[in-house]
Amino acid sequence: MRGATFTRHREIAWRGGRTTSTSRLVAEESAIALTYNGSTHAVMMGTPADLEDFGVGFSLTEAIVDRASEIRSIELVSNELGLEVRMWLDGNRAAALAARRRAISGPVGCGLCGIESLEQARRAPSRVDGRSTVFLARDLLGAMQALSPLQTLNQQTRSVHAAAFWHPRNGITLVREDVGRHNALDKLAGAIVRDGGSARDGAVLLTSRVSVEMVQKAAMIGAPVVVAVSAPTALAIQTANEAGVTLLAVARDDGYGVFTHPRRVLLPEETASRAGF
Amino acid sequence: MRGATFTRHREIAWRGGRTTSTSRLVAEESAIALTYNGSTHAVMMGTPADLEDFGVGFSLTEAIVDRASEIRSIELVSNELGLEVRMWLDGNRAAALAARRRAISGPVGCGLCGIESLEQARRAPSRVDGRSTVFLARDLLGAMQALSPLQTLNQQTRSVHAAAFWHPRNGITLVREDVGRHNALDKLAGAIVRDGGSARDGAVLLTSRVSVEMVQKAAMIGAPVVVAVSAPTALAIQTANEAGVTLLAVARDDGYGVFTHPRRVLLPEETASRAGF
Repeated sequence: MRGATFTRHREIAWRGGRTTSTSRLVAEESAIALTYNGSTHAVMMGTPADLEDFGVGFSLTEAIVDRASEIRSIELVSNELGLEVRMWLDGNRAAALAARRRAISGPVGCGLCGIESLEQARRAPSRVDGRSTVFLARDLLGAMQALSPLQTLNQQTRSVHAAAFWHPRNGITLVREDVGRHNALDKLAGAIVRDGGSARDGAVLLTSRVSVEMVQKAAMIGAPVVVAVSAPTALAIQTANEAGVTLLAVARDDGYGVFTHPRRVLLPEETASRAGF
Repeated sequence: MRGATFTRHREIAWRGGRTTSTSRLVAEESAIALTYNGSTHAVMMGTPADLEDFGVGFSLTEAIVDRASEIRSIELVSNELGLEVRMWLDGNRAAALAARRRAISGPVGCGLCGIESLEQARRAPSRVDGRSTVFLARDLLGAMQALSPLQTLNQQTRSVHAAAFWHPRNGITLVREDVGRHNALDKLAGAIVRDGGSARDGAVLLTSRVSVEMVQKAAMIGAPVVVAVSAPTALAIQTANEAGVTLLAVARDDGYGVFTHPRRVLLPEETASRAGF
């Protein structure tokens, strides 16, 4: 199931002092409810496409399951209000999630709830291994340059983010787009797993800024390298440091900045010296 | 209370084939818990500044209160995990919120929860009046051009969004910045009210894309006109139509597109004709 991802809308364009009655392709945005065993866990606004990927990816990056196989089935339901991704979990996982929901709801009136909630928000990131993974600096730059023509929805609408997976031998193997950058990354996470692959031997490419949640999600799927078009936040850098993720950002045509764990990026000088020049 | 909003971080810059060890100013990002009468309502990642504005604005745009005066007190608490905005509501409001929280938690295992949650997400927008409000097209363009130099945190970090309030006589009176665009708008909403003003006689300016939630929040504070740098989603256009909000977007140096309720924007041709030329 895939709804329309863009539609044409009327626009009165006032540009250069002239008024034109025209139209523009605009990205669709739908309410998407994620339910587990009949209970809603979250409702997010997102692009109505790749919803099985979204369900699987969200479940993994939010630690609702450890493995996709713990999701027994996924059903997509559509009504005039939005879309539902109905997931059914294994008995153990379902019980664990119900317990977690009860804990999050918390006792009303407890003065410590703020701190407890902050503890949950600031969860320790997964630690990524892939200590031996090393990519050439210029290959990662080439990967970012190859992404733009693959953003098909963004070419129409100029208003959606992309998350992509790049592999050193196979190039960009998966691209997912969404009006929300977290959703795009969740869809990519699900697509990688459903494709039978692993994020461990490549890099995650992002067209967006890097906030802490983007790093947490990338770490949850074991991505050793994240490359982003825009800048990271301070907390994203700190979290990438702790999680062992190599964070490259402010990627432009001429290069990028390396903010954490530079050992996985082989710069040209090093290539020369390691090659014995 | 205001934490540091940016810090300097080390960066290995690889640009134009050359590697430089340098540093960069990076936006801070903190977990911010919003609590009402001792219970956490939400935890958001945001810029640690203007937190009273944030608490008041979020309470208004999320319809937790109808008027800021229903918030009896606000206390800001900081610990190593993040920040807490502790709000205490009037008795009636507190009871209504507790009932709403119980309704949202819902019965575990109810197969209809997805639909119920979608209904809550797709709430009907407030209807904005201000039928007689009319601004000159060129004044709104000038407002957007005046915003950039006022984005002080963004000038340092190039990675935060701004929401601003513009008044036809007074120009830009308030600017709020945040790593999250929803937070920036909530902070602006709170700042307008705490400043003793109203959004009804001016325009809300946004540096971001316009998703449905941005329109809903603007409508909740009665803003008749929203002007944004980037594109709207289809649902944002539909919601602005329903809410009576004039939506201008894709604002660049040469102009912008008018997507809904154009009657509030006086284009130069109309200025001439209405003036009797």
